[in-house]
Order: sequence, then C-alpha cells, then structure tokens
Amino acid sequence: MTYVVHRRSLTVEWGHCDPAGIVFNSCYFEYFDWSTALMFNAALGMSKFDMTKSFEAEMPLVDARATFHLPSRHGEVVEIETNIGEFRRSSFDIQHRLYNGGKLAVEGQETRVWIGRDKDNPSVMKSKPIPTEIIERFTAR
Amino acid sequence: MTYVVHRRSLTVEWGHCDPAGIVFNSCYFEYFDWSTALMFNAALGMSKFDMTKSFEAEMPLVDARATFHLPSRHGEVVEIETNIGEFRRSSFDIQHRLYNGGKLAVEGQETRVWIGRDKDNPSVMKSKPIPTEIIERFTAR
Amino acid sequence: MTYVVHRRSLTVEWGHCDPAGIVFNSCYFEYFDWSTALMFNAALGMSKFDMTKSFEAEMPLVDARATFHLPSRHGEVVEIETNIGEFRRSSFDIQHRLYNGGKLAVEGQETRVWIGRDKDNPSVMKSKPIPTEIIERFTAR
Amino acid sequence: MTYVVHRRSLTVEWGHCDPAGIVFNSCYFEYFDWSTALMFNAALGMSKFDMTKSFEAEMPLVDARATFHLPSRHGEVVEIETNIGEFRRSSFDIQHRLYNGGKLAVEGQETRVWIGRDKDNPSVMKSKPIPTEIIERFTAR
Repeated sequence: MTYVVHRRSLTVEWGHCDPAGIVFNSCYFEYFDWSTALMFNAALGMSKFDMTKSFEAEMPLVDARATFHLPSRHGEVVEIETNIGEFRRSSFDIQHRLYNGGKLAVEGQETRVWIGRDKDNPSVMKSKPIPTEIIERFTAR
Repeated sequence: MTYVVHRRSLTVEWGHCDPAGIVFNSCYFEYFDWSTALMFNAALGMSKFDMTKSFEAEMPLVDARATFHLPSRHGEVVEIETNIGEFRRSSFDIQHRLYNGGKLAVEGQETRVWIGRDKDNPSVMKSKPIPTEIIERFTAR
Repeated sequence: MTYVVHRRSLTVEWGHCDPAGIVFNSCYFEYFDWSTALMFNAALGMSKFDMTKSFEAEMPLVDARATFHLPSRHGEVVEIETNIGEFRRSSFDIQHRLYNGGKLAVEGQETRVWIGRDKDNPSVMKSKPIPTEIIERFTAR
Repeated sequence: MTYVVHRRSLTVEWGHCDPAGIVFNSCYFEYFDWSTALMFNAALGMSKFDMTKSFEAEMPLVDARATFHLPSRHGEVVEIETNIGEFRRSSFDIQHRLYNGGKLAVEGQETRVWIGRDKDNPSVMKSKPIPTEIIERFTAR
C-alpha cells in the first residue's frame, strides 16, 4: 500500500538551537508532531480538534523515535516529508524525513493508537479499529 | 504591605540555552510562570488546579515583562525570589528576581487578573474581587 | 520617523499551547524574537549571523514585554507585524503586534543594545553607536 | 556489566503540558537529555563543558527513542532513573525510566557517539574509542 506524502518546509529558528548552534533534539519531535497534525488536517479536511469530535476518537502517541544524520542551524530552511508507514487494526506508524539542502538529515517515526470511549464504561478510553474512511483518505491513487 | 517571599533554585539546562550559549529569553518567562504557580501552591496549600476549583476562579496573565542584566549558562544554579508586588481589586502584580552567583541577573514582573464565571451569564468569565482569604495568605506577619 | 513594517503569519501549533488550550505565554516571546531576526534579515539582506560578522556587533535583548489581550489556540493562523519603535544612540526598541482573526491579540516590545568589542580591551563587549547604514535600512521612504 | 544508576526527581510544570493536559512528548526528550548530562556530571565529577575540554571529545546524539506508557500532569513529581545501557567501541546507549507514583510511565533510550578531532585533519570530527577511564567511572562496584 502506498500512502499520500505530506510535505512542508520550515525555517529553523534561533530559539530551536542549543549552545552547539544546532537544533536541539527535542525540537525535532515538535516538528514531527506538528507535521502529523498537518498531514491529518490535509487528508481529512478538518482539524485534529474536529476530527476528535467527528470520530469520537483520539490518537495518542505511544512511541516516538528519531535518528539524527546531520545537524541543522538557525536560518536554514528544511523540508519535512511525512506519510503513514502502516495502518494496523488500531494502531499505526507515521514516518518523517527531514531534508536540509536536499540531504536526509533526520528520520523520525511515531506510533499512535486509535482510542475512543468504551461503550460499556464511558469513563474509560480503549483502543478501537481505525475507521476505513480514515485509511482511505491516506491511500494514494 | 509586605508579602511573603517564595524562593527556589534551579539549574539551567542545556536545552534552555541558545547558540550564544546563554538562557534563551523565553525560558525566563517559563521560569517565572512556574515560580508563580509554586508560590500560590505554597501560600494556599493547594495546587493551581485545586485553587481554580475551590475558588471558582482563574488568574490569566495580562502582562509579562523581564529586564535582563546578566546572562546565565547551562549548569549554573540560579535562585529565583518571587513575591506579590501589589494586590488591587481584581488584578495583582507578581515580582521575580533571578540571581546568579549572588548577582541580580534578571528581573521579571507579571500582572494577572482574577476572573470567574458571571452569575447572570455563566458562559462568560469576568473579573471579580480577589478574595480576602487569598490576600491574607500572602501577607507576611 | 516611520520605519518599515515586517509582516509574517504563522500557525499556532499544538506544542505551543498549554493545558488551558491556549498559547503559553513564553511562546509569544519566541515568536517575537524570531520576528525581530526575520525583520533584520529582510532589511539588511543578510542573516543575523552574517550581520554580526559584517558589523562586528551583536544586539542582545535587555528588556522584553508583552501585553495579552486575547488568547490564541492551536491551528489558528496569526499575523505578526514588527517594526522599529525608536533608534537611540546605542539602543533601540522593537514593537510587535500579533493579530488573530484581524483582532489585536498580543502586543510586544523588545529593547536591544548595539554592542561590539572594546578597541582598548577586546575581551570586553561595550555599547556602540548604531551605524547610520543600519538605521537607513529601516527607514520607510 | 552493571552500570551506576543516576536518579533525580522533577516536578512537571504547566509549561511542559499540552492542551490534553499532559506532558507534551518533546519535553520527555528534554528531560532525558538533561538526565544524561547530570549522570555524566555525577560520574565524572565535572560538567559536560569541562568534560568536552578535558577529553577533547563530544558525544552527539545519533538516535533517541521513547515509549509512552502513562501520561503525567503538571504538579506531579516524577522520578527519572538513568544508566548506561551498553558501551561499544565508540558509541554507547543510555536508558531512562520515568516513574510517576511508582509506576513506569515512560521509557527512553539514547544512542550517542564519542567523537574528537581527527589528528591528520583537525577541522574534521570523527568517532574515537571511548576512553577506559570514562567507562570505569560508570561501572558499579
């Protein structure tokens, strides 16, 4: 299965960088988290907030990972490509690739679960099957 | 009127610092915001969350200011002193002084308002008089 | 004197917001700091880093202030207008106005000083007159 | 091989939390990065900065990962345990376990490389063997 690729570019800011002059590692996780939000927004045509209401579901992060190949510095424009890696029954992977000057600088992966209120016990959130209509929106034609 | 002074020390972290090797300015506002929360916690004996419920009130920030005298670097231990500057009818000032090695490095001031739900229109938050019991808790004896 | 106005828009990210669901106050200072960098970049046609080398000068922040009129939430697109407020001999003010949906939401002000190495004692940075060519670049025609 | 365990506790701050009211994922990477710095500081009896000078080496992050089991909220005190996972020739793993109320809430892992200036080409940093005296400092007796 091939999934739609979301792309955005951003300029590394002074405040993202540490005393070594390079993007502090936690900032990449902020970049990736927001790229995921933007990808869902683009694919579903609605904000994360509206998606949560419309599908009565949330998608908390259960695992995040990044591999750092090359540093980036403030003022540099980087490109982030984001796509679904795999949809499983009630969890899914998201892959991020951050390019700086055309070179792969950071790779990221998130795993999220699809959860909603338990019908028998509404105060509890539990994992639920990812709706087919969500999956279809990410499927490249 | 003299008010109780809240003190805490914290170690400047690598991730708080920018490419100049010094604490990035926005981090001081994080330090001060949290010192305010800790001061209220200490004075009232309850968390900001419990205070909000107990007094049916919130205290949003309307103005924040900092003056930077000396930089601080990662690994340095700084001391923050915080106290009420002035209580007015429904707003109040908080003063922060950050010391590094005994020298005054940054001064901060916040202005917050005391707001609660309007009795006639509960969907609206409006300013309310700060309860006397709150003020008394901050008054040095 | 009227100075050039720099404008940019940005989308408020999930990670900029706090448990109240609104932009955490320190993030506005990050926004404003970066708007200042972008304004200098646009006016001088060079990065802050190159400016520092070209003019043998830096411009540390000595005072930052923000007044919060209206909150902003993740996913909202805000507009920031930035301009020089006043150039003095060796310090200057920068003004920021953040609009959300056309309404003035936050006002910010920074004061910075122009410093360079002391000729007689190069290990010391001291305030220097702001070069005329810098000032001219910001003057609206 | 068993390695020394570094422990610290920290209070989750309001500014660390997102609109869901829980610690934003990138903050955990800040917590872990700083725990690593503190662990090296404790084991070597010198700051990261002094270590860099003393050993003519740096230890950039090449991989960071976290698995999120339970959320944490502002005001909660969490405990972080950190230890070396494995020393290899010129890279090593660091493991972090964050506990909230005695329950394992987040697990983290970092991989770092030990690099120094190339003797033949000092402008280039390349991986070097981790000094035995570093490894011994982390070895539990």
